[in-house]
This record gives sequence, structure tokens and C-alpha cells, in this order.
Amino acid sequence: MYEVLNEINGAEDVKKLSLEELEILAEDIREALFNRLTKVGGHFGPNFGMVEAEIALHYVFDSPKDKIIFDVSHQSYPHKIITGRKNGYIVDEDFGEDSGYTNPDESEHDLFNVGHTSTSVSLATGMAKARDLLGGEENVIAVIGDGSLSGGEALEGLNVAGSEIKSNLIIVVNDNQQSISETHGGIYRNLKELRETKGKSENNFFKAFGLDYIYTEDGNDIENMIRIFEEVKDIDHPIVVHMNTVKGKGYEPAVENREYWHWTMPFDRDTGKPFVDLNAGETYTNIAKKFILEKAKQDSSFVAITPNMPGSFAMSQKERESMGEQFVDVGIAEEQAAAMASGAAKAGAKPLVFTNVTFMQRAYDQISHDICINKNPVTILLNHASFNTLRDVTHLGIFGIAEFSNIPNLVVFCPSSKEELLGMLDWSVEQRRHPVMILMPGNKVSCRPSDNNYDIINKFRVERKGKKLAILGLGDFFQMGEALAEAVKERFGFEPTVINPRFASGVDAELLEKLKENHEAVITLEDGILDGGFGQKIASFYGTSDMKVKNYGLKKEFYDRYNPKELLASLGMDKESMLGDIGTLISL
Amino acid sequence: MYEVLNEINGAEDVKKLSLEELEILAEDIREALFNRLTKVGGHFGPNFGMVEAEIALHYVFDSPKDKIIFDVSHQSYPHKIITGRKNGYIVDEDFGEDSGYTNPDESEHDLFNVGHTSTSVSLATGMAKARDLLGGEENVIAVIGDGSLSGGEALEGLNVAGSEIKSNLIIVVNDNQQSISETHGGIYRNLKELRETKGKSENNFFKAFGLDYIYTEDGNDIENMIRIFEEVKDIDHPIVVHMNTVKGKGYEPAVENREYWHWTMPFDRDTGKPFVDLNAGETYTNIAKKFILEKAKQDSSFVAITPNMPGSFAMSQKERESMGEQFVDVGIAEEQAAAMASGAAKAGAKPLVFTNVTFMQRAYDQISHDICINKNPVTILLNHASFNTLRDVTHLGIFGIAEFSNIPNLVVFCPSSKEELLGMLDWSVEQRRHPVMILMPGNKVSCRPSDNNYDIINKFRVERKGKKLAILGLGDFFQMGEALAEAVKERFGFEPTVINPRFASGVDAELLEKLKENHEAVITLEDGILDGGFGQKIASFYGTSDMKVKNYGLKKEFYDRYNPKELLASLGMDKESMLGDIGTLISL
Repeated sequence: MYEVLNEINGAEDVKKLSLEELEILAEDIREALFNRLTKVGGHFGPNFGMVEAEIALHYVFDSPKDKIIFDVSHQSYPHKIITGRKNGYIVDEDFGEDSGYTNPDESEHDLFNVGHTSTSVSLATGMAKARDLLGGEENVIAVIGDGSLSGGEALEGLNVAGSEIKSNLIIVVNDNQQSISETHGGIYRNLKELRETKGKSENNFFKAFGLDYIYTEDGNDIENMIRIFEEVKDIDHPIVVHMNTVKGKGYEPAVENREYWHWTMPFDRDTGKPFVDLNAGETYTNIAKKFILEKAKQDSSFVAITPNMPGSFAMSQKERESMGEQFVDVGIAEEQAAAMASGAAKAGAKPLVFTNVTFMQRAYDQISHDICINKNPVTILLNHASFNTLRDVTHLGIFGIAEFSNIPNLVVFCPSSKEELLGMLDWSVEQRRHPVMILMPGNKVSCRPSDNNYDIINKFRVERKGKKLAILGLGDFFQMGEALAEAVKERFGFEPTVINPRFASGVDAELLEKLKENHEAVITLEDGILDGGFGQKIASFYGTSDMKVKNYGLKKEFYDRYNPKELLASLGMDKESMLGDIGTLISL
Repeated sequence: MYEVLNEINGAEDVKKLSLEELEILAEDIREALFNRLTKVGGHFGPNFGMVEAEIALHYVFDSPKDKIIFDVSHQSYPHKIITGRKNGYIVDEDFGEDSGYTNPDESEHDLFNVGHTSTSVSLATGMAKARDLLGGEENVIAVIGDGSLSGGEALEGLNVAGSEIKSNLIIVVNDNQQSISETHGGIYRNLKELRETKGKSENNFFKAFGLDYIYTEDGNDIENMIRIFEEVKDIDHPIVVHMNTVKGKGYEPAVENREYWHWTMPFDRDTGKPFVDLNAGETYTNIAKKFILEKAKQDSSFVAITPNMPGSFAMSQKERESMGEQFVDVGIAEEQAAAMASGAAKAGAKPLVFTNVTFMQRAYDQISHDICINKNPVTILLNHASFNTLRDVTHLGIFGIAEFSNIPNLVVFCPSSKEELLGMLDWSVEQRRHPVMILMPGNKVSCRPSDNNYDIINKFRVERKGKKLAILGLGDFFQMGEALAEAVKERFGFEPTVINPRFASGVDAELLEKLKENHEAVITLEDGILDGGFGQKIASFYGTSDMKVKNYGLKKEFYDRYNPKELLASLGMDKESMLGDIGTLISL
């Protein structure tokens, strides 16, 4: 086991190996990947397809002197294994040492902490420019692919690489004929044409950007890739190496179903079955997905648009096909998704954009400028808008409220139950006056009756009338607020008011004004950072009054792979700390 | 005068004209453009170059049934003149009726309120999709060009148009060989190749995206353009009409100096000279520009990167050239500018990105993910970050604080004087620990000594020690705070404390805590919307204490072409209203 890998303690060790040993190393790396991915899950297909190319990269180039910049850095695991971090793959107790993305804190071979796609070419143009200004001679290598070419940042990067950089820059395009789900966009037709003509087609997407270009058919052949990389090493101008690879290579189920095996939960290697069924039981994600599928059936003017994230909602190929022309996957292209939805809304359709909240910030300008200035009734449904689900620094869901709720004309909903999620979805899609964003809860599903009347924007809902203290529990922190109210009653002997704000994008001035009559303090709870968030709006509202306001939420910080419960406690959001605070805020 | 234009009261009237009359109409439209632009200024070159094509569009297509979507809608003036809004051009008293961009509130022929570039193809894909779902048969026409093709949104749009739309979609590319400043990017080399081969080059940028394509050499020939548009009208699939035009056509100075005449102040038609010299006198913009030029001279690792906005800083071609390789114009491509800067910073250079604040939101994700997670020391210098300068709804500078100051790791500065602007610029470029953003003031230049010590992040500066009331005047509202302090002293007979926060991205907890000792109230003043802004952080800080906090700033609203003084008064920010508020906040 790990015959060759055992001897690899850094990138320099790869250079000492014979071709035969390199090929054994590839096998060892796949075994190491199996060990980690069967047990903790992670990105499967992208890494299995890149084993040979990453070995060849390190064989030919001299990282960290030469700069290898990974796009969608979830395809960097073989690179991590080679550059001194194999224990995160082969020693079960050390899994926690390696993040699932490149990470400069782990190794000098990792240049950026990146989890969003389409970044590498632009970042590489900057490194190449700095090298030229500082008089360096290193190679700068951007590794892109796996669907990232459809993103605007990558396309802007190719355009600039093709004209403003006049020195060494190597862009390795990993063409595995797949994105997260299937690829979308005219570009991919051109890549196919290039593959079929072995790179000889006159019409060449990369050359149209002014870039030099070579094609190689077997990106999974180490010897071939070494030859190719040696050919371009130290080249004096930007060049694209278009490399054909097999996503998931080395595991038959992954080659056969590339979408399913893009990312995997822990699974049984023999059967390919995950140990836990993500689709089992009712989740907010499933509830939303069912709504989308049902709405498409009922209303032919409804259109669901996603920037390549049907997977986040566990929406199968069959389910997507059931929507026919009412489903559009634009590829990884959030700007396009938002603007397309604005156009569709303007023309009378009922568009819903869905993806993860962390990716939607890529369309900040399109949401503000293309949608909200124009007040076009687009619904934007964002998954994982919670500190409780995705916990990698690059994929955090805790910024949605602060980012989006301050855009004028945008109604931002934070549902706190199944009934509310469904009611908000339906209201949003049917109304014609407001752009709407729905931030999906990260809790287990709650059920609770809801009036689902949202016609009066920013109308909060009083769930329990009480006195002295009002608890505003937003979205999936509503249940925390309810529990706190119970604890207050028990500890202090009075019933506080419990409010479900529902809207994150404004305050219910009438209600807040009325609270002054028999309340001394207000507590806000939100599943997001405090800065720029919901609670601060409440604090500002009461700033000139005697009402005390305590805001609970997360700090403005890029948290990374934390324990959710410990994090809350560290922020004083455990029950005892909050009861302590309350004791100082109100007269007892 | 206006022989034919006088008879044009709507798009349908154009269809009744003979070719000869259409040609006179073109002359009349240029005269109308002259009338407005010499007197109030506006976008010159883009409109003078598009007169014939827009006449032909309305001759051939049936707007508003057919949908004409303008990109960089500053090239839509001929369209506006044709579609019932000529008075905004030929009747001086009515200039105010027409905005400088397409505007659905003005006319049903305008589909979107857009001022940022690169939007039209994406918006058009949405309108085409909606048409198909709703069973319509109208043409959907995206008009793009004038440099917008370098923007990621446009490129994402072309990619999706080339694969996901299987019905009518006409993309008119206005190729005037120019952007705002000169074009940048490999794409433009391909456009040149296409022009030189009359569209016959095998390597074709648009075809590489999977799009059908035709080329026409004379986009300024009405007869030719009518023929071309008739050819593509009702086509059953997406097609690009690549049309060569002369930017500024009809005015020799504008043809000769296309960059200068992209946008103009009011000017003398005979001499081409503006009535007011923007470069006269000292402005914050000039101060910043001089810093950039000087820094480039002093430090060969400094690099200034702009997404095609040197003009916003009145940076001439000669000045840009003086920086050599230390100046990079990436074209209209904010994502690339931000990511490139991150790469350059990581590799040891000192990058500064400069543009207008309204455009930088296009790189929200790159600022957060590519720069700030990685803590790369990039300086982002943003012009017009004030309610006081750009007042078109699409170009407002009032959102910068709320948008960016809640991104972790980003230091956001609001300078209040020349000395501070220079000190912050120098500190930002030289330090290696923080990504920094500087929001440029919109006031006249103030001079005031500054310690320019920013090593302690979020350290506010007490400018005058007083009691009872503390006034925190952020950035270019600092002077308003100072004036208010004077008025307070006069009216109420005590000296309030005056604080210059300098940082918008956090609070000086130590100072705020100390204020509790002998202050009853705090006032915040900021040149931006209150929601998500600076003042709300202060309100939240004091939420559980007895300190009263009153936040002054703008509402979360897309204001449009307002009077700045009237706006402030309507928000209670005139001196008398503020003194009234203060009277209720403190014990007298």
C-alpha cells in the first residue's frame, strides 16, 4: 500500500521518480483519495481525473518557485498529496489537517484560498504582471476547467491574458466535458469541435481571445503530459494547453455518472452507495425543489434558472427534464442567471433563480442594477444561507443578509418554517411588483401555521404577545428565540413577546413603535454577521429612545471549518449567557 | 432646422419616410444631439456613431412590440429622439425630461434602466426565453458594443445565447473600435481581424461561442443597415450582426479624439472647447491621480490597474504612457481588475485598482473571495463615492459604505481632507497586511493636518474634545459635523466632541466606551445610505447602554437626478432640523 507515495514528502521527491514509479504513484494517489473520500466525502470526479496531470505538473515545474494556481481548487487534492500533505488522505486521524480547497495556511505550494470558480486565469495575470515588474523568471500556471470557463471572471481573464500579458503564462484547461452538472454554453460546443479535430479546427475559442494554443488528447497519460508541460515550460508568451481528461478516472461508477460523482458523501467503495441518503427525510431543500417542479407543471410562464447548481437542491436529471424549456442551466455564470431572470420578468414570465447564497454574490451588480433598479419581479432562492451548513471559509452562508438586504427595492425573506418557505415562494413568484430573495434556513424542518400574507412589505409577525422584553428571532434563529422566551418565563417569571420578522430588508416601524409602550428591551437574533445586518437596523431605529437593544449574531469574520455549537457559545449565544444579558437589560 | 425630425413623433413615423428623408433625419438628429450636448453635455461619440443604425432599427423593427435592448444605454439618444422624446434634445427647457440612459419611466420603447455596461445580451436571453414560453413572436434585439464586450456579464450572455436559446435573438455589435478609453483585450484583435477580412476570418470570436454571424462594413449607411436588419428580422435562431461604425461620426474633433469625446461637458461647437475646464483647480480626483503617477515613478513594484476608467480620474493618454508597464487597463472588466490585483499583491507587487464606486460592485465576489479571504494587500480607490457628484440612478455613489464595509478583512477608509486622502493612499499601498478600499469624497477639497497613522485599524480621531454630545462626521460629511458643532455651541452654549472616524469598516470600541463618561448622545453623519452603513454599527454598539444615538444619512433608495441640497433637507440634515433633534436628545 502506498509503495511509492510513502517516499513522497514534498514536490521535489516526484522529480526523482522513473516513469514506472510515477505510474505507481498515480495508483497510490487514487488509493489515498479513496481512503479519504469514502470516509469523509469531498470532491471526487475532479480529482480522480487530474491525478496524472498534477503529477506531471510537479515533475516538470518547480513549485513553489513556479506558481501553480488552481481554479475550482476542489481539483487540487493530488497536488496536496504530493506537496507534503498526504497524511490528510492516508492517515484517518489527520483528515482534519487538510481543507478541501487550496489553502496558503497549509502550504507555500497553495497560493490562494479559493472555492468559487473561474478565478485562476485572472489571478495568474496578476502574478505574471508582478513577476515582470519585479524581474522574476518563474513560470505562472493557471489550471482551469471542470466547467469554470463559463464564468465571466474567467472570460475576462482570458481576454486580458490574450492582450495585456506579453510574457510567460501557461493556462492549463482541464477539459473533462463536464461542469458540476453537465456543461452549458456555446463555448463547450467549440471545445468539442477542438477535441474532435485534435485541436486543428480553424475556429478556436482561445485563439479568438488572442491566445496561443496547443491541444493534447490524453491528459491522463503521465508521459504525454510531461512532454507537453516541458514543451511550454519557460515559454515567453501566454499559451493555452487544452487537455482532454476523463472525469472520475479510476472508478467506474464515477466515469459513468459524472454529475453524481462530482462531489460525494462518505460511500461504500464496492457498491458506490453513500452511507447516508441525503434525500431521506424532509429537508428545506427538498421542499423548495418540490415547489419548483410543481410550479413548472402548473404554470407555463414559470421558468427556473440556475447557474449550474441543481445539485445543491438534489434536483435530478430526470426532474430537470420534466420541466422542459422551463428549466435553464446557464452553466457557472451567476451574472447571466440574474440578468436573464430580469429580462424574463420584464417580458412577463415568472423567473426563479436558484443556487447557493455564497455564489450569488458573484451577481451583486446584476441584482442591484439589472434587477432592482428596474423593479423586475425576479425570485432568487438561495440555499445554505446559514452558519449551520457549509462551513468552509470560501462557502460560508453567513453573509447573505448583510450583502443583499441593503439593496433598495429588494425584498429579502428569511423563512422560519416549512409553511413560510412555501408561502414566501408562492407569493414571490406570483406577485409582479418586487424583486425578492429568499434565504434558506439551515435548520431541521420546522412546521408551524403561517398567515403567509406578505403584501405589506416589512410587516413582522407577532407570534406571542408578552411584555418587558421582545425577542425578534429572524429566519432559522426563530426557534432559538422561542426557546429563549420559554427560558425567560421560567427564570424571570414573565412572558416576553416573540416576533417573527420574516423580512430581513426593513423594519416594521409601526410595530416597533408600539413595543415602546410596555417593553424595556428588544433582542434580535440572526443567522448571519451583525455588521450590516438586520439587528443593527433595529438598534438604529431605537437609537434615540429608551429602549435597550441587544443584537445577537456572528462576527464579521471569515470563519473556517468551525464547530457550530461552540461558535454560538463563543458569541454568547448559549442560553445561559443570553439569560445573563437579559437580567441586566430589564428591571426585575 | 429639423425639417424631417419635426414630423417624427414616434417610431412609426420613421417607417413612412423615403431613403432621402431618412438621410435628412440623420442630419436632423445630429443637430438635435448638438443642441443638447453643447448645452448640458452627455455621451457624445457613442450617439453620433449610432444615428444611422438606430434609424434603421426603427425602420425595420416594430418597437415596442419588437424589443430593442440597449447596452451601455448612453448610446440610445437617437432612439430616444425617434421614440417621442425629441423635445429633450431640441427644446432647451425640456432637457430635464430625458435621462441620459434608457428609462422605462420615460417610454415603453425603453425596456431597462441601465447605465452599467455588458448587460444587453443577458437581458435579451431572458426576454427571448419569456417570449418562447409565452408563445410570442416578437424579435428580441440586443444592441451591444462601445467596449462592453470585455465585461464578464456580456461574455456569459454570449455563451448562453450560443447554446440555450434556439429561437429569434439578434445581437447587434456596434464595433466602433473604441471603448471609453481605447479597447483592451484579445477579443478586440479578433474583431479587427474580422473587419479586415470583411467577416470572413475562419477564427471568429462569436462563432466560437456557437453563434451565427454576419458582418457589415458600413454601419453608418442607412440603406445598408435597413437591408441587413431586414435580412435578420424574424430569424429563427440567435445571430450576431457585427457592424462597423465610426464613433463620433459627424463631428471631426470627435472622430479624431474618440476617447476625449466619449462623454463631454457643455462645449463650444466651433472650437470643440468645453466651457468649463474640469482640470482647473485642485480636486480630490486630481490629487489622487497625481499620487498614482508619482508612486509609479518612485516604486517599480507599484502597478495601477483600471477597468477602463482612467477618464474618471482625468488621466490622459500621455500620463498613462508615462507609467509604462506599471499601468494596466483591463477594459471594462471589474472582476478581472480585482482578481488581477489580488494575484499581483500575492506575488509581491503593490497594486492599486481605480474606478468609480458604482462600477466596483461588479466585482463584489472578487473583492470578498479573491482578495479579502486571502488578505492580499490590494488598494481599491473609488471615485464619486458621494451623493454629491453622480446623480443618475444607475451611477449613484451612495451605496459604497453599505456594500463594502461589511466584508471581513477589508479596511474601508473615508478621507475627509487632502492630507488624509494622500496619507491613506500611501499607507494602503505600502502596508502588506490588509486589503484596503478608499471611498473618495465628493466635496470641494479641504485641507487639515492629519497624523496619518492608520496602523491601529478602526482607530477614530478625536478632532475636538467636548462634552454631552459627540458628533461623528464620516468622510466628506466631516465638515458638516464640524459646522454642526459650531452651531451647537452657539445655540446651546457647550462644546460638543467632534470625531473623525476615518474608518467606515468598524468601530473604535475603546473610544466609544470612554465617551460614555461625559456624553449623553452621539450623532453620526455619513455620505451614504443608513441601512448597513456606519452609523448603524454605532447604534448597535450603544444599544444596551443609556447613550442616545441618532444616525444621519440617506435612505435605502434608488434616487434619480435629485437636487443635493433639497435631498439633505428632506432627510432632516439641514442645520435647523439637526439642532432641533439635538435639543431633544440631551439635557439642557
